[in-house]
Amino acid sequence: MDRTKISWNGWGWAAHKDDVAANEAAWSWLAEELGMPSLLATPARALDDIALAPSRLDPSERAHFAQVLGEDRVRDDAFERAFHARGRSYHDLLHLRAGNLTTAPDVVLYPRGTDEVLSVLSFASDNNIAVVPYGGGTSVVGSVTGDPGVFKAVVSLDMSGMDRLIGIDPVSRTATAEAGMYGPALDKALRAQNLVLGHYPQSFEFSTLGGWIAHRGAGQQSSRYGRANDWLVSAKLATPRGLLTTEDFPASSAGPRITDLVLGSEGAFGVITEATFHVQPAPETSVYTGFLFHDFASGAAAIRRAVQEDLPVAMLRLSDADETHFYRAYGAAGKRKGIGSRIADAYLKYRKFGGTASAMIAGFEGDKATVERSRNRFVDIAKQLGAMAIGDSTGKRWHQGRFHGPYLREPMMDRGLGVDTLETATSWSKIDALYAAVKKALEDTIRETAPRPGARGVVACHISHSYPDGASLYFTYIFPRALDGDVAQWLAIKRAATDAIVAHGGTISHHHGVGEDHLPWMTQEKGSLGVDVLRAIKSALDHKGILNPGKLIPK
Amino acid sequence: MDRTKISWNGWGWAAHKDDVAANEAAWSWLAEELGMPSLLATPARALDDIALAPSRLDPSERAHFAQVLGEDRVRDDAFERAFHARGRSYHDLLHLRAGNLTTAPDVVLYPRGTDEVLSVLSFASDNNIAVVPYGGGTSVVGSVTGDPGVFKAVVSLDMSGMDRLIGIDPVSRTATAEAGMYGPALDKALRAQNLVLGHYPQSFEFSTLGGWIAHRGAGQQSSRYGRANDWLVSAKLATPRGLLTTEDFPASSAGPRITDLVLGSEGAFGVITEATFHVQPAPETSVYTGFLFHDFASGAAAIRRAVQEDLPVAMLRLSDADETHFYRAYGAAGKRKGIGSRIADAYLKYRKFGGTASAMIAGFEGDKATVERSRNRFVDIAKQLGAMAIGDSTGKRWHQGRFHGPYLREPMMDRGLGVDTLETATSWSKIDALYAAVKKALEDTIRETAPRPGARGVVACHISHSYPDGASLYFTYIFPRALDGDVAQWLAIKRAATDAIVAHGGTISHHHGVGEDHLPWMTQEKGSLGVDVLRAIKSALDHKGILNPGKLIPK
Repeated sequence: MDRTKISWNGWGWAAHKDDVAANEAAWSWLAEELGMPSLLATPARALDDIALAPSRLDPSERAHFAQVLGEDRVRDDAFERAFHARGRSYHDLLHLRAGNLTTAPDVVLYPRGTDEVLSVLSFASDNNIAVVPYGGGTSVVGSVTGDPGVFKAVVSLDMSGMDRLIGIDPVSRTATAEAGMYGPALDKALRAQNLVLGHYPQSFEFSTLGGWIAHRGAGQQSSRYGRANDWLVSAKLATPRGLLTTEDFPASSAGPRITDLVLGSEGAFGVITEATFHVQPAPETSVYTGFLFHDFASGAAAIRRAVQEDLPVAMLRLSDADETHFYRAYGAAGKRKGIGSRIADAYLKYRKFGGTASAMIAGFEGDKATVERSRNRFVDIAKQLGAMAIGDSTGKRWHQGRFHGPYLREPMMDRGLGVDTLETATSWSKIDALYAAVKKALEDTIRETAPRPGARGVVACHISHSYPDGASLYFTYIFPRALDGDVAQWLAIKRAATDAIVAHGGTISHHHGVGEDHLPWMTQEKGSLGVDVLRAIKSALDHKGILNPGKLIPK
Repeated sequence: MDRTKISWNGWGWAAHKDDVAANEAAWSWLAEELGMPSLLATPARALDDIALAPSRLDPSERAHFAQVLGEDRVRDDAFERAFHARGRSYHDLLHLRAGNLTTAPDVVLYPRGTDEVLSVLSFASDNNIAVVPYGGGTSVVGSVTGDPGVFKAVVSLDMSGMDRLIGIDPVSRTATAEAGMYGPALDKALRAQNLVLGHYPQSFEFSTLGGWIAHRGAGQQSSRYGRANDWLVSAKLATPRGLLTTEDFPASSAGPRITDLVLGSEGAFGVITEATFHVQPAPETSVYTGFLFHDFASGAAAIRRAVQEDLPVAMLRLSDADETHFYRAYGAAGKRKGIGSRIADAYLKYRKFGGTASAMIAGFEGDKATVERSRNRFVDIAKQLGAMAIGDSTGKRWHQGRFHGPYLREPMMDRGLGVDTLETATSWSKIDALYAAVKKALEDTIRETAPRPGARGVVACHISHSYPDGASLYFTYIFPRALDGDVAQWLAIKRAATDAIVAHGGTISHHHGVGEDHLPWMTQEKGSLGVDVLRAIKSALDHKGILNPGKLIPK
């Protein structure tokens, strides 16, 4: 992965130019939706124009690292430090685009093996240097922010040099790889053996195996392939106190499973250097298809019925009415033949689908017979709940664009807009109240923090992942930025939404993680004794507390 | 549950008289199998004949407990203390039958709610009193042995008074119950709503919800209903530092899941007082049917194929050749029309199934269409691997007798024999070597520790639970007891088998737990840093270390 081709202050490939950027019709429409007379140009600052504080790392310590890793794997040029200063959330982009690089690490290290990681951690622990483990750096919750805490310098430990597939056990259907493998490289190596892990988060192209585990993530097709906590068999966790190799049994009752503690550890307990995980045969076929439901509730009922009867689906993704409307109208304004226009056609044709219409993409992957059977059964369920099938091309188009979403942020941020996403999950019996409360919190706070009276937000939501006992809700919100205090505005919106989540029995994150952004709610999420437990685990492995300070565990 | 009807020094109902006890033909056959000229009468001692040390509990402390719980829920009569002295393993029974009650608790407390448990724990922690949480007491690994450690007295905290179903959430398909509910009571309460948890371990009739979670257990039909770590949603854990209520989300990425740490905690982190768990509709139908494979390897291959293609089965239980032979011959000797004689008929009819023939019971539960389809598909798989179907009546008979096994121990122990079981799990690629090594270790050590030259054991094995990446092996071994040192003999056999397990990549327990018996191997299982993590968790919740001393965490 050539990092110089990846944006240091935005999403993905630096060369990517999104069509939407120049589509003035879409922008006019959006301005009107948001109650704004016009949109302002708010470009990002160039790296060359930004002053970076000198590295705080002592030259003798730098020399030590160079001796251990080799000079070329100790980097402290401006690009490297800026690239590793933060993750890629809206909040991060606000800081990066404004040229605020106060969180830039003092040095970036690229280890090439578990022993090198252990050596770095041991030295850092002995010398009061904070270490922030770094995979693809796509965190959207502030998990890789270079926070020195009480330490004298910050190392960003970039795992991308540890990118080997170590082995495959075809009999047990597991594979072992170094944690720094990027999604596409891992997928390619496995598909060469006709196998897949099947973990395809929206960040897939730019995130790593270790990152998926460290934040306990879920891919878009987790209904079929499982979350990280389903597919992880075993991990090697390098810690300042040495190497922890976790259990690798198919099942065990020998006490709590240490492997479970690696999941969601966010670099605060150790550095994941290798992982063993389940693999499956590459699916013989896959089908993605669209439905239109009369409303969100009937679509949610269809999902619940399917998962509770254990129907083998890969993905059921249900947009609420506002999301369905937004993508239809945004697409129409831009005259793009996207998912929106297809839905719009159906929408117009069948007038009975009014303003509450909710679009769903249903995905099925596997052997042909199972895919056929599951799909037919799901069509039955959807029809019983009054849905209309809107065709495979809608599903195909969704699948083609499934990693594209984050690219839409920067064109918006270039025009004085803010856009962020947040997500939660709760049980089916609480989901309606949670949905209403979060939506209201977002809409109200956006109005209250808007730069002018009458300005408002677009708040869209979809169910992205589902389980027998509940589902996730994924909110996208677009709003006019309060340019004189956009970080404070974001924080107010985030705070209101998360307070609503906690008050209504939702988790503070379904698949994004904790990072810095969700930390204030961790005690409510885990209970004070639960937090004590996490703190105790950290102390046992990272006795000086050098690993990712200020993350995961509230002070 | 009327505890006075349960055996204090054996399995299950005290009134149970097993047919096999008086079947002299079976005993003669067994003596010959074991290379013994005859079997000796070795009856258990009666409770009335055993002297019990006086309770070490200070009268003022006893009075405190009586004040908190009520006098009738503070028990220290001989039966109560003896009943709670140990679990129900072969090792436990050796001690109990010999009248060794040194591990009897000083008092047995029966709390009726979480607040009472918290009160007991707080007082015990402040007053240096050890607390051993007790569910049904069926542990076969020494998890409830009354070990005072460094403390001045031992309380057995019997949870059987906390036996209410608290609620059902039919929308989210979860239920919440107090931890002391026995299997049958819980099953009955759920089935009244046409729901099941589906956790049916062999101990089902005499074990509790809390116990299943505390030892991270698996029911016989875990392929359909999951292990405790699959079905547990949330738990209340009462600790000396207060109440820990764990997360109850369908999924979350907000750090490691505290709920996971309750699973397998074996009373060393806290006392599970309530749990929320997944429930499912009671199966519309269930089918248990038999197959005969040419050998263990082809049977194992059929299981692997089925689980790796995600076939919805409830149970696939494959006996090795020795187990198949033993039950056939033992049944024939006893002239019982059991599974053995059915298999024997088939065996004789089809001579091509020679001495390596391995019997399988396959179970399917669920809606009729799925059961039909899964069963047909499994018949295909089995036939492709050369198996012969031997009919549903074999399966039915297995299902009827599925909780009966442990009753066979005492008739054997009454005749100078030893009988124990142990279990492990590993990946499919390691299972053949693990199987061979454990079998050899058991056979060799039984021969070496036998009371006379030429005496030998019967070592039988079956695969009881299976996963995409591996399976469990469950060994049953019967041997002539070294009557002058039967505990040492058991320990030698156990040590050899467990060393073999660890050396060949198996877990020290697939579903029995750690207890005292597996503790010496915990550091090998978890790694020294893994054990440090467990110790740190314990310290965070049980700062004085009063909870179940000498369990889970090596000194």
